[in-house]
Amino acid sequence: MSERVSFQNDYNTGCHPRILEALSKTNAERTTGYGLDRYSEEARTLIKEACCAPDADVHFLVGGTQVNLTVTAGVLRPWQGVIAAETGHINVHEAGAIEATGHKVLVVESRDGLLSAEAIDRFCRMFYDDPTAEHMVQPGMIYLSQTTELGTVYRLNDLQEIRKVADQWGLALYVDGARLASALAIEETGIDLPVLAELCDVFSIGGTKCGALFGEAVVITKDSLKQDFRSLMKQRGGLLAKGRLLGIQYRELFRDGLYKEIGRHENDMAAALASRFMARGFEFFAPPVSNQLFVLMDEREESLFEERAVFERISILEDGRRICRFVTSFSTEMAEIDTLFPH
Amino acid sequence: MSERVSFQNDYNTGCHPRILEALSKTNAERTTGYGLDRYSEEARTLIKEACCAPDADVHFLVGGTQVNLTVTAGVLRPWQGVIAAETGHINVHEAGAIEATGHKVLVVESRDGLLSAEAIDRFCRMFYDDPTAEHMVQPGMIYLSQTTELGTVYRLNDLQEIRKVADQWGLALYVDGARLASALAIEETGIDLPVLAELCDVFSIGGTKCGALFGEAVVITKDSLKQDFRSLMKQRGGLLAKGRLLGIQYRELFRDGLYKEIGRHENDMAAALASRFMARGFEFFAPPVSNQLFVLMDEREESLFEERAVFERISILEDGRRICRFVTSFSTEMAEIDTLFPH
Amino acid sequence: MSERVSFQNDYNTGCHPRILEALSKTNAERTTGYGLDRYSEEARTLIKEACCAPDADVHFLVGGTQVNLTVTAGVLRPWQGVIAAETGHINVHEAGAIEATGHKVLVVESRDGLLSAEAIDRFCRMFYDDPTAEHMVQPGMIYLSQTTELGTVYRLNDLQEIRKVADQWGLALYVDGARLASALAIEETGIDLPVLAELCDVFSIGGTKCGALFGEAVVITKDSLKQDFRSLMKQRGGLLAKGRLLGIQYRELFRDGLYKEIGRHENDMAAALASRFMARGFEFFAPPVSNQLFVLMDEREESLFEERAVFERISILEDGRRICRFVTSFSTEMAEIDTLFPH
Amino acid sequence: MSERVSFQNDYNTGCHPRILEALSKTNAERTTGYGLDRYSEEARTLIKEACCAPDADVHFLVGGTQVNLTVTAGVLRPWQGVIAAETGHINVHEAGAIEATGHKVLVVESRDGLLSAEAIDRFCRMFYDDPTAEHMVQPGMIYLSQTTELGTVYRLNDLQEIRKVADQWGLALYVDGARLASALAIEETGIDLPVLAELCDVFSIGGTKCGALFGEAVVITKDSLKQDFRSLMKQRGGLLAKGRLLGIQYRELFRDGLYKEIGRHENDMAAALASRFMARGFEFFAPPVSNQLFVLMDEREESLFEERAVFERISILEDGRRICRFVTSFSTEMAEIDTLFPH
Repeated sequence: MSERVSFQNDYNTGCHPRILEALSKTNAERTTGYGLDRYSEEARTLIKEACCAPDADVHFLVGGTQVNLTVTAGVLRPWQGVIAAETGHINVHEAGAIEATGHKVLVVESRDGLLSAEAIDRFCRMFYDDPTAEHMVQPGMIYLSQTTELGTVYRLNDLQEIRKVADQWGLALYVDGARLASALAIEETGIDLPVLAELCDVFSIGGTKCGALFGEAVVITKDSLKQDFRSLMKQRGGLLAKGRLLGIQYRELFRDGLYKEIGRHENDMAAALASRFMARGFEFFAPPVSNQLFVLMDEREESLFEERAVFERISILEDGRRICRFVTSFSTEMAEIDTLFPH
Repeated sequence: MSERVSFQNDYNTGCHPRILEALSKTNAERTTGYGLDRYSEEARTLIKEACCAPDADVHFLVGGTQVNLTVTAGVLRPWQGVIAAETGHINVHEAGAIEATGHKVLVVESRDGLLSAEAIDRFCRMFYDDPTAEHMVQPGMIYLSQTTELGTVYRLNDLQEIRKVADQWGLALYVDGARLASALAIEETGIDLPVLAELCDVFSIGGTKCGALFGEAVVITKDSLKQDFRSLMKQRGGLLAKGRLLGIQYRELFRDGLYKEIGRHENDMAAALASRFMARGFEFFAPPVSNQLFVLMDEREESLFEERAVFERISILEDGRRICRFVTSFSTEMAEIDTLFPH
Repeated sequence: MSERVSFQNDYNTGCHPRILEALSKTNAERTTGYGLDRYSEEARTLIKEACCAPDADVHFLVGGTQVNLTVTAGVLRPWQGVIAAETGHINVHEAGAIEATGHKVLVVESRDGLLSAEAIDRFCRMFYDDPTAEHMVQPGMIYLSQTTELGTVYRLNDLQEIRKVADQWGLALYVDGARLASALAIEETGIDLPVLAELCDVFSIGGTKCGALFGEAVVITKDSLKQDFRSLMKQRGGLLAKGRLLGIQYRELFRDGLYKEIGRHENDMAAALASRFMARGFEFFAPPVSNQLFVLMDEREESLFEERAVFERISILEDGRRICRFVTSFSTEMAEIDTLFPH
Repeated sequence: MSERVSFQNDYNTGCHPRILEALSKTNAERTTGYGLDRYSEEARTLIKEACCAPDADVHFLVGGTQVNLTVTAGVLRPWQGVIAAETGHINVHEAGAIEATGHKVLVVESRDGLLSAEAIDRFCRMFYDDPTAEHMVQPGMIYLSQTTELGTVYRLNDLQEIRKVADQWGLALYVDGARLASALAIEETGIDLPVLAELCDVFSIGGTKCGALFGEAVVITKDSLKQDFRSLMKQRGGLLAKGRLLGIQYRELFRDGLYKEIGRHENDMAAALASRFMARGFEFFAPPVSNQLFVLMDEREESLFEERAVFERISILEDGRRICRFVTSFSTEMAEIDTLFPH
């Protein structure tokens, strides 16, 4: 396997050299624990500035599932559930983390991993029109991921419409930004950090898949969700003892644009890779716009690519075609793409 | 409303006169609490005899959701979910009771409210074939309802096949018998109490919808599920202080065939009602075989029936037709059917 | 055992004859399910009137543990716990029902089963003074029982002081009234239903131990706790299908003072019993003021009483003395006391 | 604050230089995620060898609370609780993490943070002797910490006796080794890794407080607890995407004795510090044997030390004396002790 190039995922190496350097340089310092140190404080300030959200609360957690379950536990009342796409990470790949907090994932119709305001509205309308609604799970929050699990993105208009629906039905709006860097690098979406801070009640800014060793920043803009969030983090096992490790990494990512830069690099590499696939006539399961590509190939093609690269087969379609995922990361190099597609 | 006949549900009156009499006659006696009295003991013995399952454990709870959540909490390990049809009561009408115990409901394709061994097998195969299975919710139990929420029934062969699939994939098999009396009265299914005791790990024998004031008997045949079930019942709020009330009712239901007799009556009334509908050209959303009928009617027809009867509209199909549910109970009389369909 | 008189508990018979009559008379009527019937509506009105609380919400559940876990799940946020005496029912005898909803029971020092405002205040002060408070379980609610598990009672002044402490620390105040009838019959406490409605955020009015077959009424006076309570009840298995059974019983209990009358009877019988014990030199583990007596006796005395009566030994003190509980109920007759203490 | 020396805790710096070096050297490599990489595999092997437990399962998680809640969720059945000392970390400082998994912490009498076999046995005997035991929380697991939260340690004989009691009452035995390195360095305890592997069902080997950036290794020796543990970790947010970070650190700690060496260093520094305190007549709240010292001082003394050092005041005794905690770590230097106690 060691000789093959890897497009397996965006967390298959360590961290960006600048982050490693920052961790090394501060290693011997003594600081307070649990994220109350000066680095974490600085990082929080930088993120609030980047979001134009001086009143937001910012917290750092280690991993994405941890973030999703903690946010859900904090936002929902016991009898509420969270609306998500069928492909939503919380619905599929978190081993029931949401249900373990006592809440149902309410699957709403989606396309290419994207929920629409209309589908959410229809779902809520049906719920509240149902005379047996009080025997059913009340929707309490919308879960979106940007980019989605299929690498697609919401656009400003989508998000604005969803916000309206959320307001209409009294739903909190949470955006899982595990791969937000890649999404932010797509300027056509019209969604930047201030937009997210304005339209969401809470969202995350992923570090793990954007050059950090680990880490997800949670930005809470809605006042009623802020209270005691650190206690909840502690209770769910998400308060890191040496919390400064998160602060130091996010400070580096947000000090001078590194976060955006990495997002752009990921997308550039993915675009280069996508164009090579397209040039050879491959089609995609979902539109290739971010750092995850879902390439359709037949069995023979899959075997050929497996000789040269590590990637994941997501599933097999009824017609026998494979959906194969190729992911780029901060450390992907053009040479690797060249290796996969030799001239 | 008081002048209309009611086919709203099978729990809209008190109890069968014989049960009321039994409760009255024993009212002044002093007994031990929490189901450890002689009436409960007798009722347990009668049920074990009726099931030909001398080694089974029998417990009495007040309501169906209580039973479903307690059984699920007792059977599943924390990382497991329960397989159910989309229409399954636990998936739709228990306000997230299963999720509140920490478990996901795994929806498997169904038809007319019925799961098939094949669909369950396909689901499990896909799960265990998936390289990311350990990030997903492991199936741990199959939930069936007999009769189903659409009034349909499993037949012996269905259940045997499902048992095989359960064994193959290490799943417990639980049958929710909230309306078991009606199902047992359909002899063509080939499923009687001894069959259930043989094929299921745990199942319930509903009383609420079969002439009792309230009550669901839980029969546990699998040894590993028996331990400490009473503690679990207590913890989930399901251990009735005056437990004898359940014992007295079930003793009456199982003393000389009253349970079966009520099931037959319910079905007879439903068959009479169904034939009247059919005679007028109405179609059914699901085959009318038990005490619940799902009649399709247009808006005008619905209005007309609403003038004479209380019933529930389940939903509106895309073509505008209503699915209207008519339910018969131990207390339904032929005169009520005549009132609905005057000659 | 059948020849012995029973002071085992206050739920060892059926129900008060008037309740049985009411259930019988209404048995054949058809009503809507889940507590939306006219009897339940009437009962709610009667209770609100008795509480001088026209804006309260009143719900009926079957059992006490069910009430305690549902109220706790509804009131607390995930990171909060409930303050209780060590002897509190939720701390000892509910098989971990509170913890199963995700919340810790925070044991605060008590005497004779009674919490004091001072002890609660000290506990909260220590919590908020602790620099590591955010790593600890935040107190969110006070749980009292009236009468307590040791048969003792809070007085008006106690409750007023506790209310002040609750306000000071932002705690909800919940009174478990499983044996409220007996407490209300002690006029010296100065606590009647309107007082409870004024000082508590939520409290229960027990029926099971006061002549009903079963049933606990939950009175919610605090607006923010009212929302969606029925969904929560459903989710926790506490929404009775034939909900009218609860309505009919509470209507009878509150129609013309039966509830209070039963409380008085229970206490009168207990006082008579207590005086017989005292006349023979017995001492009590806790002051005998309500329908539960905790008599201290040595091994020989215990054996002698066991020949004539059923009662519960609660525990053995270090000096070998037994704490034996004798409970009176709506059905206790003077003749039974005479049997226990023959002249 | 920056000029004061810090004995605040053992997680106030980054990591041991060798660990930083290992992380740096491997930074650019591409590996599989979620702990399935070769470094994690090697680390698991090294730990199993150090434990003489070839059949054990070893998992790596990020933090201690995460470990405690995941182990508890995996070991206990829903109606069971975990026995712990009142000072136990799970009882005090995890914001209700255990209760959030649905389980009660059963506080058993302790001394200096240590549980005794006798006290556990007495507790279990009382539980099973109680006729209402099925209404109470059944003990299912014993939680010990080595070293304890008061810096004290169990000795071989203590642990053997506790194992016997565990077997007698059917309890799992779990040792929280957040500070195990310090405990292992006290050879007089007679407890080394193979002893733990033999006597415990599951235990953890803490990295965070022993020179790692973060990390706790969980060693499961009891077969029935091994199954699906990774799914449970995922569900509780404890499966690190770049799992190799844990593998690389533990590989370094266990490659050539670094883990033990750090434990010895911590204890040596603590012993030096303790002797300085003793030389000046200070007393300790708990015997000073490991890397945590609990020094008793009056208000004036506390103020004086606060001018020169960062440390934590745990609480104030009734006589006004402060319990002040001084902790040493892998990075504590003799010069810091000299600064605190200048000649």
